[in-house]
Amino acid sequence: MGMPSAVVLMSGGMDSCLSAAIAREQFDLAFLHLNYGQRTENRELRAFHDIADHYDVTRRLVVSIEHLAAIGGSSLTDPRIPVSPADLRRTGIPTSYVPFRNANMLAVAVSWAEVIGANAIFIGAVEEDSSGYPDCRREFYDAFNEVIRQGTRPESRIAIHTPVIGMTKRDIVLRAAELKAPLHLTWSCYRSEDRACGMCDSCALRLRGFQGAGLEDPLLYEHRPDYLHN
Amino acid sequence: MGMPSAVVLMSGGMDSCLSAAIAREQFDLAFLHLNYGQRTENRELRAFHDIADHYDVTRRLVVSIEHLAAIGGSSLTDPRIPVSPADLRRTGIPTSYVPFRNANMLAVAVSWAEVIGANAIFIGAVEEDSSGYPDCRREFYDAFNEVIRQGTRPESRIAIHTPVIGMTKRDIVLRAAELKAPLHLTWSCYRSEDRACGMCDSCALRLRGFQGAGLEDPLLYEHRPDYLHN
Repeated sequence: MGMPSAVVLMSGGMDSCLSAAIAREQFDLAFLHLNYGQRTENRELRAFHDIADHYDVTRRLVVSIEHLAAIGGSSLTDPRIPVSPADLRRTGIPTSYVPFRNANMLAVAVSWAEVIGANAIFIGAVEEDSSGYPDCRREFYDAFNEVIRQGTRPESRIAIHTPVIGMTKRDIVLRAAELKAPLHLTWSCYRSEDRACGMCDSCALRLRGFQGAGLEDPLLYEHRPDYLHN
Repeated sequence: MGMPSAVVLMSGGMDSCLSAAIAREQFDLAFLHLNYGQRTENRELRAFHDIADHYDVTRRLVVSIEHLAAIGGSSLTDPRIPVSPADLRRTGIPTSYVPFRNANMLAVAVSWAEVIGANAIFIGAVEEDSSGYPDCRREFYDAFNEVIRQGTRPESRIAIHTPVIGMTKRDIVLRAAELKAPLHLTWSCYRSEDRACGMCDSCALRLRGFQGAGLEDPLLYEHRPDYLHN
């Protein structure tokens, strides 16, 4: 009898890459990628397959939930709403918030997990650096686990794992280095698909994480501001 | 200032039609239809628009979550799994159960509600006649309301309403008649799109409901078994 299976929500970014590296220590992996009409989808999908190849993951599912783009309300999916420049001291909910996005993603993950018999779902949500996103907090995942218990077959016993939720980006870079997670294959930028812009929130958080860890980010950047002084 | 808005999950069947009739007493309606690759989608979509026209609902959204068909696991979406013949005394989870379908639907409804500023979601779930579906029970909706509280903007205050959850199909037919809900525009059959088959679970429940209410179902049926003796 082999290891139990886990569905890993793999965006192609650092957080999900580390989540996969942690999950594979106890689970046989299945990778799920959600396309929700984000600007950089093509580049993220490449990262998804690159990381899946790296870990020899054969069970891969790519699902479009582009209705989130049709529904709108976020700068990540609506070209009329500009992506805010990085401001890591800003409070409140960022313009990039996609209403209830993570619930849409988890719902797909649970459906797939129930059919393939996986009993874990890994998601790379990070509470700290997404403090403005209501669906990145522990309370949200606790509540969702109860929905899974109530809404699936009693024998399914699927639980969400959020192994990086309490980490800073610095912690993530350091732990990924320990586990040899392939961060060189990941993509984080919200704006560009060839060179990372270096200017959006996601680039800023990533660069600050590498700086804090004292490591060099292997990606190429259009701009590489010094975030240590922010 | 007008009435507050509600998103009504409108499958095109009797339960959602009555839910809309109840919702419109207090809310301005927006209709959401989910296509999840079910066999009778074209006919259901026609019912959706017919009912929307009947109630002058202009805000309509049709969203494909056909990945549920790709994920499989249900006779409603997978041609390799036959739709079970009606057996209203069967226990356990029917073959038509689509894993975690209602959570996928609610996630889309909440995203849309948050963007259009609606603070209610109406879903025509019925506990009794779907006793085998884990995601049709009150506990599931209570748990999902907590996920909404945790996973949306604090000011959104969106709640799920399940006005028919405790009703039998007989109750639904009678209440729909009182409210003049357009049951002649609805569609329930899981198998056919021209004449209802009269043989699947959904037809059986519907016919039994009309018989119990002492009313004539206005739809045409291929077969019209007498379900009162079951």
